[in-house]
Amino acid sequence: MDSIKYLLNDNQLPENWYNLASDLPEPLAPVLHPGTGEPVGPDDLAPLFPPALIEQEMTSERWVPIPQPVRDILLQWRCTPLYRARRLEKALDTPAKIYYKYEGVSPSGSHKPNTSVPQAFYNKEAGIKKITTETGAGQWGSSLSLACEMFGLECLVYMVKVSFGQKPYRRAFMESFGAKCIASPSETTASGRAILEKDPDCTGSLGIAISEAVEVAAQNADTSYCLGSVLNHVLLHQTIIGEEAIMQMDMAGDYPDVIVACTGGGSNFAGIAFPFMGRKLRGQQDVRIVAVEPSACPSLTKGRHAYDFGDTAHLTPLVKMHTLGSTFVPPGFHSGGLRYHGMAPMVSHALQLGMCEATSYNQLECFAAGVQFARAEGILPAPEANHAVVGAIREAERCKREGKSETILFNLCGHGHFDMQAYIDYNAGKLKDYAYPEDEIAMALAGLPSFGNS
Amino acid sequence: MDSIKYLLNDNQLPENWYNLASDLPEPLAPVLHPGTGEPVGPDDLAPLFPPALIEQEMTSERWVPIPQPVRDILLQWRCTPLYRARRLEKALDTPAKIYYKYEGVSPSGSHKPNTSVPQAFYNKEAGIKKITTETGAGQWGSSLSLACEMFGLECLVYMVKVSFGQKPYRRAFMESFGAKCIASPSETTASGRAILEKDPDCTGSLGIAISEAVEVAAQNADTSYCLGSVLNHVLLHQTIIGEEAIMQMDMAGDYPDVIVACTGGGSNFAGIAFPFMGRKLRGQQDVRIVAVEPSACPSLTKGRHAYDFGDTAHLTPLVKMHTLGSTFVPPGFHSGGLRYHGMAPMVSHALQLGMCEATSYNQLECFAAGVQFARAEGILPAPEANHAVVGAIREAERCKREGKSETILFNLCGHGHFDMQAYIDYNAGKLKDYAYPEDEIAMALAGLPSFGNS
Repeated sequence: MDSIKYLLNDNQLPENWYNLASDLPEPLAPVLHPGTGEPVGPDDLAPLFPPALIEQEMTSERWVPIPQPVRDILLQWRCTPLYRARRLEKALDTPAKIYYKYEGVSPSGSHKPNTSVPQAFYNKEAGIKKITTETGAGQWGSSLSLACEMFGLECLVYMVKVSFGQKPYRRAFMESFGAKCIASPSETTASGRAILEKDPDCTGSLGIAISEAVEVAAQNADTSYCLGSVLNHVLLHQTIIGEEAIMQMDMAGDYPDVIVACTGGGSNFAGIAFPFMGRKLRGQQDVRIVAVEPSACPSLTKGRHAYDFGDTAHLTPLVKMHTLGSTFVPPGFHSGGLRYHGMAPMVSHALQLGMCEATSYNQLECFAAGVQFARAEGILPAPEANHAVVGAIREAERCKREGKSETILFNLCGHGHFDMQAYIDYNAGKLKDYAYPEDEIAMALAGLPSFGNS
Repeated sequence: MDSIKYLLNDNQLPENWYNLASDLPEPLAPVLHPGTGEPVGPDDLAPLFPPALIEQEMTSERWVPIPQPVRDILLQWRCTPLYRARRLEKALDTPAKIYYKYEGVSPSGSHKPNTSVPQAFYNKEAGIKKITTETGAGQWGSSLSLACEMFGLECLVYMVKVSFGQKPYRRAFMESFGAKCIASPSETTASGRAILEKDPDCTGSLGIAISEAVEVAAQNADTSYCLGSVLNHVLLHQTIIGEEAIMQMDMAGDYPDVIVACTGGGSNFAGIAFPFMGRKLRGQQDVRIVAVEPSACPSLTKGRHAYDFGDTAHLTPLVKMHTLGSTFVPPGFHSGGLRYHGMAPMVSHALQLGMCEATSYNQLECFAAGVQFARAEGILPAPEANHAVVGAIREAERCKREGKSETILFNLCGHGHFDMQAYIDYNAGKLKDYAYPEDEIAMALAGLPSFGNS
């Protein structure tokens, strides 16, 4: 049989992350201070992040070296495999060739440790003792717990209250690695207390949990805040995925015509797509790039490209991004990693410049595609990853209609082992689609800050 | 840093399974027909198994070729990694070197697909349409569901009733791959109905579920039965683990002084240990081999080496093995894969011949070791695998006491993603140890069949 798997050796693990900022035809809009409307500098970020991460947030160097202690840990599960989905191709009867990179082999089951490990490392180097963060479905919290344990850091996770109740297994995973989990909104912060005062039954959101985690970090000198997506340095750390994929496509003697990636905050999308986008920008090789998001939280396809806060309590700086408004709370569909009101500034910028496309799918068609993929390829995807799967299947179906043998590449960013309740509900016909929350988004967008948006 | 991971290339995937029977100084005792007490022949097994598997059950050839279609599927996740547990060594402050083979990278998260894939393949080749099996915690049922889907076979899983209720996620996993799951004991079989008539609230056992699955297969010509452990051909299929490990230890420039493996039915133990045991029997290289089982279901350390039935309803042939009595129902500790009254005849025979040792641990020390391992190595083991972990840690502690730099190898047979309730209970201090069920075992042993045991 022809190959289905392309593996790299340990000595092929990338030595540098790729920074898309170095190749952008127009620079990113500056980050603004919410009080003054002026661009922020490194000093403004110092209460939250260690110097090395602030530097990475702002650098325009093309290649940023991956420290050896970080590479040593990543090597436990990297380089991750690239698969040719031959059984799925056959099931779809498509002339297209479908490849997928699989990030579910990491110890927490997703791409998130690619950034939790370096973030923990740089914080440890800077003398930080404790890290705060937020988590929705728990992928990010699990990955950061793991990384903190490896570097001997305390880890405090504000977990969106509805998930805290519904996902006890994710919580147990974090606690097994020594992290402390608090249901958000909580009484432990001023922003949490303010929300509970207005609405004691509030079930929380990522925006609220970010507010609480940022507040704790800002008030304690030995404490930093870590974010699992959106920021430039987080996207940077994920580019190791695409860098490996370029080498692996080369092993396969192939190159993608289309790259498909799901996107919530943008780090998975950036991880697989940016290194290919850079090659395109440098005139090396053309490629179509498709971002897939949930119809019920459509920041790229329906949001406004504007300055907005990253959190609900408005403690963060203002960033220019595709946003649904910082007060928008997405409906309760089963992809916690994609339930965020904004999109990474760098991904938003790429869309504005026409360097990628964006599309959205409802959850029922995502789960149908996920189960079809599982039955063909044997891996049950995370609900977030189902968005990439459906996007790739639709491209393969288009190739069949058009009689084209294109090469499709997508990133399967995680497995669904901690999301089985969603599959139980799907198998039982209990999952539903959500109407596009037009009114809620309009209301949230009406509250955009004035700085930068005049 | 020194290497922590040893990977093989696709072209190093073993081409043959290793058959310990070829090197045994004394042959296995024959399998007996329960009605006549005479040795069974291939014809007696034909209602349950396809010819190729019956041949593998009885062969004395040393090397049995792995069919190419089976290798093509195994290659999706094999060869599996061998890790050096440097962070665990450091945490234990031991002069020992600890290596572990990791089988959790398979799509169902354990070593079980190593045999479910060839079993499905041979049944498909023989024109079988449907496969029945039993499952406890769900690892085996998941792995067989996956394999059946790949070869287009129907899959009917009798799941022990208590697990059916407590492990909805495992059930959803099987159903996502198209399998049908029935809580056992059920009304669908005569053996199930007989048990429910006596005890309508019976929560089931592996022995009962085997009876139901065997009954359905025996009564339908297009239906076969598959077992996930115990039988010679199942152990044979798992030897791919140890064969890879031999090559990987060689890459590391090392060889184990001690091999530690958990054992319930014996397939994981055989998988990692038999290829090394064969080398020892052929005078190539010495090694100590330690089987670890749960104190609450101690077939190797407390059972009798005698002829017994494999199931509760006494539908199977009689096999000579370490047994606690076929009517013994183990207490409800959290390692469903180790809750079986018997031990593989080949593993039992090896213990009788002094080719390995056996020891047992209570569940609390197993979970303590599992969490210690997870915090050091980043992987949260399945409860079954925790038995191997505690065994390896105890060996490393002995090395420290004795000032010896021995090399320890164990098989981490699966991850704990579907066992998080056990970790929730452990973290909350709610798990308990079970007293050695002496009276229940004595009663079950009193009911051993007379054939072969005079």
